[in-house]
Amino acid sequence: VVERLVVVGGDAGGMGAISAARKGKPDLEVVAFERGSWTSYSACGIPYLVGGEVDAIDDLVARSPEEHRRAGIDVRLRHEVTAIDLERGEVEVRDLDSDVTTREGYDHLMLGLGGVPVRPDLPGIDLPFVHGVQTLDDAAALLEQAGPRTDRVVVVGGGYIGLEMAEAFVRRGSAVVLVERSDQVMATFDPDLAVMVAEALRRFGVEVRLGCDVTGFEEGAVLTVDGPIPADLVVLGIGVAPNSALAGAAGLDLGVKDAIRVDARQATSAERVWAAGDCCESRHLVSGAPVHIALGTVANKQAKVAGRNIGGVHAEFPGVLGTAISRICSTEVARTGLGSAEAREAGFDLAVATVETTTRARYLPDTAPMTVRLIAECGTGRVLGAQIIGGPGAAKRIDTCAAAITAGMTAQDVVDLDLAYAPPFSGVWDPVQVAAREVLKVV
Amino acid sequence: VVERLVVVGGDAGGMGAISAARKGKPDLEVVAFERGSWTSYSACGIPYLVGGEVDAIDDLVARSPEEHRRAGIDVRLRHEVTAIDLERGEVEVRDLDSDVTTREGYDHLMLGLGGVPVRPDLPGIDLPFVHGVQTLDDAAALLEQAGPRTDRVVVVGGGYIGLEMAEAFVRRGSAVVLVERSDQVMATFDPDLAVMVAEALRRFGVEVRLGCDVTGFEEGAVLTVDGPIPADLVVLGIGVAPNSALAGAAGLDLGVKDAIRVDARQATSAERVWAAGDCCESRHLVSGAPVHIALGTVANKQAKVAGRNIGGVHAEFPGVLGTAISRICSTEVARTGLGSAEAREAGFDLAVATVETTTRARYLPDTAPMTVRLIAECGTGRVLGAQIIGGPGAAKRIDTCAAAITAGMTAQDVVDLDLAYAPPFSGVWDPVQVAAREVLKVV
Repeated sequence: VVERLVVVGGDAGGMGAISAARKGKPDLEVVAFERGSWTSYSACGIPYLVGGEVDAIDDLVARSPEEHRRAGIDVRLRHEVTAIDLERGEVEVRDLDSDVTTREGYDHLMLGLGGVPVRPDLPGIDLPFVHGVQTLDDAAALLEQAGPRTDRVVVVGGGYIGLEMAEAFVRRGSAVVLVERSDQVMATFDPDLAVMVAEALRRFGVEVRLGCDVTGFEEGAVLTVDGPIPADLVVLGIGVAPNSALAGAAGLDLGVKDAIRVDARQATSAERVWAAGDCCESRHLVSGAPVHIALGTVANKQAKVAGRNIGGVHAEFPGVLGTAISRICSTEVARTGLGSAEAREAGFDLAVATVETTTRARYLPDTAPMTVRLIAECGTGRVLGAQIIGGPGAAKRIDTCAAAITAGMTAQDVVDLDLAYAPPFSGVWDPVQVAAREVLKVV
Repeated sequence: VVERLVVVGGDAGGMGAISAARKGKPDLEVVAFERGSWTSYSACGIPYLVGGEVDAIDDLVARSPEEHRRAGIDVRLRHEVTAIDLERGEVEVRDLDSDVTTREGYDHLMLGLGGVPVRPDLPGIDLPFVHGVQTLDDAAALLEQAGPRTDRVVVVGGGYIGLEMAEAFVRRGSAVVLVERSDQVMATFDPDLAVMVAEALRRFGVEVRLGCDVTGFEEGAVLTVDGPIPADLVVLGIGVAPNSALAGAAGLDLGVKDAIRVDARQATSAERVWAAGDCCESRHLVSGAPVHIALGTVANKQAKVAGRNIGGVHAEFPGVLGTAISRICSTEVARTGLGSAEAREAGFDLAVATVETTTRARYLPDTAPMTVRLIAECGTGRVLGAQIIGGPGAAKRIDTCAAAITAGMTAQDVVDLDLAYAPPFSGVWDPVQVAAREVLKVV
């Protein structure tokens, strides 16, 4: 008997499971429903499209529907799954063009539902000039409205997407105001390091307004507690929520932030129903707590794990550190593990060190500043988190920290690591090790 | 009773021990003998000095003799230690300027003797136009002879220093021929990857002659089996040998390549005599074998460990992976752990994967190629080594591999790592993970 895999969602969280599943079950019949117009694309690339570094939307597509079809996947675009019938093992699907609804049976159901940009319940939030940016369809709508040039753009929210979009619109020639309700951009960074990111934005020409609450939107303006800000276009960068309404309505267990609850195999609470990516939970490798972290890296990994299990192989996703990186206005920023506040909330007593160093040996030209913060547990010296901000080549060092945290290394272990050195890359002690040596002084 | 520490060698291997030793023994009296004219400098910076990226020799000095003296260290330049009397706990020191020899007693003796450029026993090797480059004194002599411009430079030997010096002389405007006896440059890289480095050199304007044996030197030419090569100046880049003759003559045990044998505490075979850096052995973290790896990173770490032990704290140096990085003619190259041949020699059955990927998402401009090779053990999947060659931002990823190898991670563990991704840094799977996924297919 040939089994049938139904995939809901045409991007990484869903489609990423298929090849792994087929490895175990080569005859698997696969049908994939995507309510938008694209499959397997880089949503992370949208700011570069908006900023003009990427020419066309299609450049962001890694695998088109046609390519998927050639690989034997029955991809149906503009088909929205509107209900899951767990008992009968069926989904209800609406063809958005014909408005015809059908039912499709599954042996395995792979939910890669993705995330939705958080849209606060404010007056005017549904005005057409207010854009969330999550899918290529969102990007297409945004670009269509933006046209060749938009004079005044307001970005609401200072997360990665908000910051990258603010930069992108400056590159397009717009006057950009970034409005953030809290006292800092980049909530996943320690506040004093986030200050450096805000400064990078300001140097690049973004007007950054912190501690500024948005109260609503009206044609031509964003309304705030400090008065209206003129705007031809608004981008929401408040964050991403799991797109889990469909799963919740079907009776699947939801967890933190209403993300779909999954076990280490990416199995949901219902048999033969799996989930991966922005729609579901992950386990944090340091705190052990369930978290919702909407990142493409996680989606891809979770999808592979789900796929292997669908294919009959036991596989587990070990968890996340929330490792993230971005280039914001020529400044590289990265973080992994727990932030200082997060770590304290998780009950850790902290030894924190911050070092100011350089991206190359100090005696070389074009050396840029670089700040590394290492967060360790007092007493044991175990590394819990790290944050890096600096010039070219600075931020990818976060991966060394991520590997060290995953391995349970202490600051002394990090000092002992045989890391690479040559003058074009740093001083003789890698900046991460300089920070680890400072941690040892306070641990 | 105040103890007395005698340091032999004014660079990292020796001086690096002092502050750690004093932490344990604040009253420690310290005298340091350096036969050259500089202390605590970046020998790795010499190629950038020669190439014109660094203006003055003194720019490479991290801590001058005066600064050391202000820190209470009795630094004596142009003083050569000519003998060690282990029984009496004394060294014999010649003042190179006055030619007066004295004896100095020690409670602890710290040997940071460094390395010496390998000088093959060939006719004409002692001609003044043949330069080894290891110390700032070597660099000063080289620059003095080179003057503002040298027409024809021949570099003998294709190791890091040879390659970096070849590039530096091209930057100075010289015509540079690199002569290497074996079939590849960079002996620590797998041959097919070394080909890419040779190509980078050629693109930069270096004439690379492989499989070319040098038979001698005469004024104006390097003699080879393929005939003479005209040369106004010759740079030796054949490698670095431990400068261990003094230690050997004193009766200290020598090990691999005649490097001073040390235990994990950096203790030599004689009581209260310690060694660190290019003059001594290290233990390889993967093979467990003693190795001689002359790198500033290792010297600094070993010196700290020796210093802590001198200070009365037990400390151990865990070992090395031979992690190294360089920028050769705008191409970044890095390696860690065992190479393919080395790993086979060490008795491992190998699963090797090589991937061609890019330094940024493929859809972004200025994306450069990047090659990652991951070497793992068949069966277990344990990562044994890695090599990376590529454009800007490529090579520092070697540190992720170094951390993974140190932690004993498998290729699957590397795939599971939560590494950072954004389009300016790679595709969604970090290139190291792309390589790890390929390893899993052949493991």
